[in-house]
Amino acid sequence: MASKTLAIIAGVGPGTGASIARKFAKSYSVVVLARNPDNYNPVVQEINASGGQAIGISTDVSNSQSVNAAFDKIVEQYPSQKVAAAIFNPGGGFVRKPFLELTEADYSTALASQGQGAFNFAQRSIPLLLEARGASEYPPTLIFTGATASLKGSANFAAFASGKFALRALAQSLAREFGPQGVHVSHTIIDGIIDIPRTKAWVLEHEDAKLNPDAIADSYWHLHTQPRTTFAFELDLRPYIEKW
Amino acid sequence: MASKTLAIIAGVGPGTGASIARKFAKSYSVVVLARNPDNYNPVVQEINASGGQAIGISTDVSNSQSVNAAFDKIVEQYPSQKVAAAIFNPGGGFVRKPFLELTEADYSTALASQGQGAFNFAQRSIPLLLEARGASEYPPTLIFTGATASLKGSANFAAFASGKFALRALAQSLAREFGPQGVHVSHTIIDGIIDIPRTKAWVLEHEDAKLNPDAIADSYWHLHTQPRTTFAFELDLRPYIEKW
Amino acid sequence: MASKTLAIIAGVGPGTGASIARKFAKSYSVVVLARNPDNYNPVVQEINASGGQAIGISTDVSNSQSVNAAFDKIVEQYPSQKVAAAIFNPGGGFVRKPFLELTEADYSTALASQGQGAFNFAQRSIPLLLEARGASEYPPTLIFTGATASLKGSANFAAFASGKFALRALAQSLAREFGPQGVHVSHTIIDGIIDIPRTKAWVLEHEDAKLNPDAIADSYWHLHTQPRTTFAFELDLRPYIEKW
Amino acid sequence: MASKTLAIIAGVGPGTGASIARKFAKSYSVVVLARNPDNYNPVVQEINASGGQAIGISTDVSNSQSVNAAFDKIVEQYPSQKVAAAIFNPGGGFVRKPFLELTEADYSTALASQGQGAFNFAQRSIPLLLEARGASEYPPTLIFTGATASLKGSANFAAFASGKFALRALAQSLAREFGPQGVHVSHTIIDGIIDIPRTKAWVLEHEDAKLNPDAIADSYWHLHTQPRTTFAFELDLRPYIEKW
Repeated sequence: MASKTLAIIAGVGPGTGASIARKFAKSYSVVVLARNPDNYNPVVQEINASGGQAIGISTDVSNSQSVNAAFDKIVEQYPSQKVAAAIFNPGGGFVRKPFLELTEADYSTALASQGQGAFNFAQRSIPLLLEARGASEYPPTLIFTGATASLKGSANFAAFASGKFALRALAQSLAREFGPQGVHVSHTIIDGIIDIPRTKAWVLEHEDAKLNPDAIADSYWHLHTQPRTTFAFELDLRPYIEKW
Repeated sequence: MASKTLAIIAGVGPGTGASIARKFAKSYSVVVLARNPDNYNPVVQEINASGGQAIGISTDVSNSQSVNAAFDKIVEQYPSQKVAAAIFNPGGGFVRKPFLELTEADYSTALASQGQGAFNFAQRSIPLLLEARGASEYPPTLIFTGATASLKGSANFAAFASGKFALRALAQSLAREFGPQGVHVSHTIIDGIIDIPRTKAWVLEHEDAKLNPDAIADSYWHLHTQPRTTFAFELDLRPYIEKW
Repeated sequence: MASKTLAIIAGVGPGTGASIARKFAKSYSVVVLARNPDNYNPVVQEINASGGQAIGISTDVSNSQSVNAAFDKIVEQYPSQKVAAAIFNPGGGFVRKPFLELTEADYSTALASQGQGAFNFAQRSIPLLLEARGASEYPPTLIFTGATASLKGSANFAAFASGKFALRALAQSLAREFGPQGVHVSHTIIDGIIDIPRTKAWVLEHEDAKLNPDAIADSYWHLHTQPRTTFAFELDLRPYIEKW
Repeated sequence: MASKTLAIIAGVGPGTGASIARKFAKSYSVVVLARNPDNYNPVVQEINASGGQAIGISTDVSNSQSVNAAFDKIVEQYPSQKVAAAIFNPGGGFVRKPFLELTEADYSTALASQGQGAFNFAQRSIPLLLEARGASEYPPTLIFTGATASLKGSANFAAFASGKFALRALAQSLAREFGPQGVHVSHTIIDGIIDIPRTKAWVLEHEDAKLNPDAIADSYWHLHTQPRTTFAFELDLRPYIEKW
């Protein structure tokens, strides 16, 4: 459907991001952002082939110039469309190492991908979401994807946890500032292995032990549809078998 | 619809409980429990009048004999129906007083309503939920209703917060024990004033400043529909305008 | 030393409670409470033999009449002494069982020991602590002993975690109400096995892997000595080797 | 005292850092780090004048070259002395602004000061702390100073909270990795206004309503003296009158 409303999704590979794009494409035109076009091209083509509307823009979220260029392009391409949803889902900055083996770049990359990247994305998407108030069926929504490391700094996760904690701080701060202005800001905790091409071969002890990206996307959509009387901020998602 | 599947909802008055009953009655036969039949009779009649199926059983959840009698009656009445969902939503035990004015009974009532009541309800519903695995479309689900006081013991809330903290501990423990067995256990944080008959007259500074019980029910239903690959444990719901 | 100031410690056996009593007896007369006099008699005799002053009173903290009788006796015996510190440390209510094997009494005992017991103890000690303001060197202090189960409801810990969560809620509520009135309320998280006679024989993989009760007592004393400008509410204590 | 043992304190101005330096200087030689020598010169002179031993090194913790130069100088100057304690206390990165007024530099500075700065400091201090095991009276200790914003991302605090959340993640990860190796890693939550020259003129409603930096230092020292059987990770400190 060539909707008059947009969803912008940053961090789209063959996993959660693609599922979210497919789900939101049932109602909105979608713009997907990722550094490498190979990551988003398949889902862009799939959505367009099945009657939806999608474009991809190569973007490095940790680079503000790149983010600004992407949003300038979105505004140029869709001058009269409102942004109903913006979703920040990049996986960058993951590294698992003993602390003394971490490099300065390992640590700064995690902060840049998860913290600064989310900052850049939010700075450009929030003005568009504020403009969309009243124009979209559901309150305009900004969702950030967190992880187990958003709540717990485990051994060997100093860098990634720092990035994910920073992202959660940002999400909380935005929810408290922009919730009262009618923008729904949420943060999810994805706690477990997601069932994506990269993890397909991993054999776990129990069946159904990996998170289903389509089910994650269903929950993101549910968050988006909540009325402003009843906003959820945080949702933790994990396989039934996960220890936590 | 006279479904072959049941939902049991404890704590049904004219607010959230009634909305949950209405929502789940679209798919299931519902059994509603409350101490005072005046609280559940209207929604039972409404559901039956509109083509659904509902019964109410007068029950004091804090009394195990009363809970046992209610569940015995459910099993007797619906001998071959599986229990797809059980929801614990009683509001008992609320009291707001300076600590030294709290009576021993104020405190014990809060623990009995929220802690022991949830224990009694879970002891009888979990065996039924375990039996329902594989027989219902969605994983059998047990949801507990929490509150702001589930996360924070504020001044003047010693009794109610103790009950709500206990309830959350119970919910976590059950999620960790029965999640791996295929029962979805969730806990919600209802953080704000709910828009129910009792609060209708309360004038707040902003519009839409009260939680909508139908929207709460939609979120409970969403939790219920999650596949076991992707269970949420906790969801916080609040009006956009709420301070937190 | 026959101090003009008292410390009251509930839950004194041969472990943490005895160490706390010994530590506080260096500065204060101490009153120790436990159900079974065999639990407190050794430390009472030890304190009195080494120049301190201690008495024990057989008390069931979960029973308000018993708590009232104990406090009446304290006031009668020490009519002019101020209560500088009150510490709630009972271990009752611990049980580890699959949920469906828990009895109603298992659950209610945990709530009674940890929740209602702390309520009873606080109702009587807070008025005495309020009276002690200005009369003791350090701000009057009320400390509650928590555990791993105060923060996490693990599988098989539904009863104990419910009690410990309730206790933490109570402690938070009291800290927020009575802190501004000059009473220092704290809660500790004892996360690990304590090195007491009952656990002496337990061989762990690493040395020093059990919490030292004297070191716990040192931390309680440190909390007590904090000025009102700089109160700590919560302190988590665990062996260096503990997973958390 | 010209101790054979060192304490290194980063972030020393006329407030908490100076109090920590004074406290630890009673037992150790101290090295204080701050960007501006004007910030640490007074306390260095005071410590040396009163029989202690202190040096200051101008250091920008967010710059790894600067941190490396400082630690190289410490090792050169004190070739045979063990590092008993390292404390990370810089206040950089604080900014309070509506989100859309934050600049990219505001946000990156907060991450650099609190996150990357702590990373740089820990990378150099942990090897020295590991070497000090067994050589110092108390387990070698690494303490990070957190704030209210370490636990809550409030409106207008997106940048500072992101930095402080990242710092807490780092502290947790280090505690879980190096605690079992015998290094005590702690994190404090300083929740309130500290009574320092800059805040002296601020008149609050109640007396004693500001945190006393000497009392904060006493708590840091207490953390340092804990044996490895009984390590605290986190301690929250606030004035009795503070809302939380």
